[in-house]
Amino acid sequence: MSTDQRPAIVLLSGGLDSATTLAISREQGFTPHALSFRYGQRHALELEAASNVARSLGAASHRVVDIDLAQFGGSSLTSDIPVPKGRSIEEIESGVPSSYVPARNTIFLSFALAHAETIGARDIFIGVTAVDYSGYPDCRPEFIAAFQQAARLGTTIDDLTIHAPLVRLAKHEIIATGLRLGVDYGLTRSCYDPTPAGRPCGECDACQLRQKGFERLGMADPALSPG
Amino acid sequence: MSTDQRPAIVLLSGGLDSATTLAISREQGFTPHALSFRYGQRHALELEAASNVARSLGAASHRVVDIDLAQFGGSSLTSDIPVPKGRSIEEIESGVPSSYVPARNTIFLSFALAHAETIGARDIFIGVTAVDYSGYPDCRPEFIAAFQQAARLGTTIDDLTIHAPLVRLAKHEIIATGLRLGVDYGLTRSCYDPTPAGRPCGECDACQLRQKGFERLGMADPALSPG
Repeated sequence: MSTDQRPAIVLLSGGLDSATTLAISREQGFTPHALSFRYGQRHALELEAASNVARSLGAASHRVVDIDLAQFGGSSLTSDIPVPKGRSIEEIESGVPSSYVPARNTIFLSFALAHAETIGARDIFIGVTAVDYSGYPDCRPEFIAAFQQAARLGTTIDDLTIHAPLVRLAKHEIIATGLRLGVDYGLTRSCYDPTPAGRPCGECDACQLRQKGFERLGMADPALSPG
Repeated sequence: MSTDQRPAIVLLSGGLDSATTLAISREQGFTPHALSFRYGQRHALELEAASNVARSLGAASHRVVDIDLAQFGGSSLTSDIPVPKGRSIEEIESGVPSSYVPARNTIFLSFALAHAETIGARDIFIGVTAVDYSGYPDCRPEFIAAFQQAARLGTTIDDLTIHAPLVRLAKHEIIATGLRLGVDYGLTRSCYDPTPAGRPCGECDACQLRQKGFERLGMADPALSPG
């Protein structure tokens, strides 16, 4: 297998961060295999976005795994707990919000690991970020490092690497990186609670962090412009 | 919450090891919540056994989560690869067999973690054993310790403990422990490839390790006797 054909699993939600991560994996010479989840989230729109992003950025495959996280409850993203709206960036960055889905990234990475082991990949990409941070414990770099260690011991992939290329980047830096690599952010969706017509609410934590990123670059969010 | 009402999640397959683990969790003063998986395995019989074991040992709840590991392939337990038969104990204990399901215990523990976080449990029990060992990397104590570390960092449960009470026990010691705690091994099923009528094949790795355990105690396997 030549260097530029190394397969990698890329966790892809359809949001801004994971789309950028997919583009980065390709730039680094990997052949990306995208992995998404239908996990009882309110917004199946995410998956449509993920599919468009995977196609647009040339993923070698895109697999959607069904898992029912809603049965465990505990999150505003998978149950009837209201999505918080209109919080300031300071409020967003303090504490664990109700949109936290228990153990979500641990579960996603576990499936990525199974997929990697099956197709002979030794690399997994995940678009977590610890800056412009939503307060999720499973986005911290210490968690990613610890999971990598567990994954190496728990599989036959002794040299597995979990790449979190966004972990030290602020939102506007992520967007600038993606623009350089040809990401079409008009295809991505970040909102936790879109309107029935599929428009971002503009007020949830994800919408606010995203807006702040585009504003910092002096740009309009292409996902907000019609067409 | 009094000491004897501490909730714990217990991974329960319906086999001998996890049944014993459930009994041990109760003896240690936990209120066990059993968690099983319908994961595309060939033998749904396991789940019937898990249900009987959970009821018999007084689990406070028993949840079955659907996950499709078969889509990743790579294992004789979830695909068309033949289950190995008639291997000697020495052969069983060398190398990773085809019945290894990629990242299975990582995935199972991740769901247990989500369940624990949701119900406020800080303890997870798993019946892995590194003696009479089937060669699965995700049964090693180093893996369990590393996963515990990742789980503490990736959730709000800073003091999470993953208990693997069987890890240093040989099969006959596990059986002796369970008998002392009232486990009815006639309810458990270990075979990787049972007959259409639900009888153990007697020749797969799991059957051989189980037989060896009962023989060592000078007993017949109660799951093999009619009625």
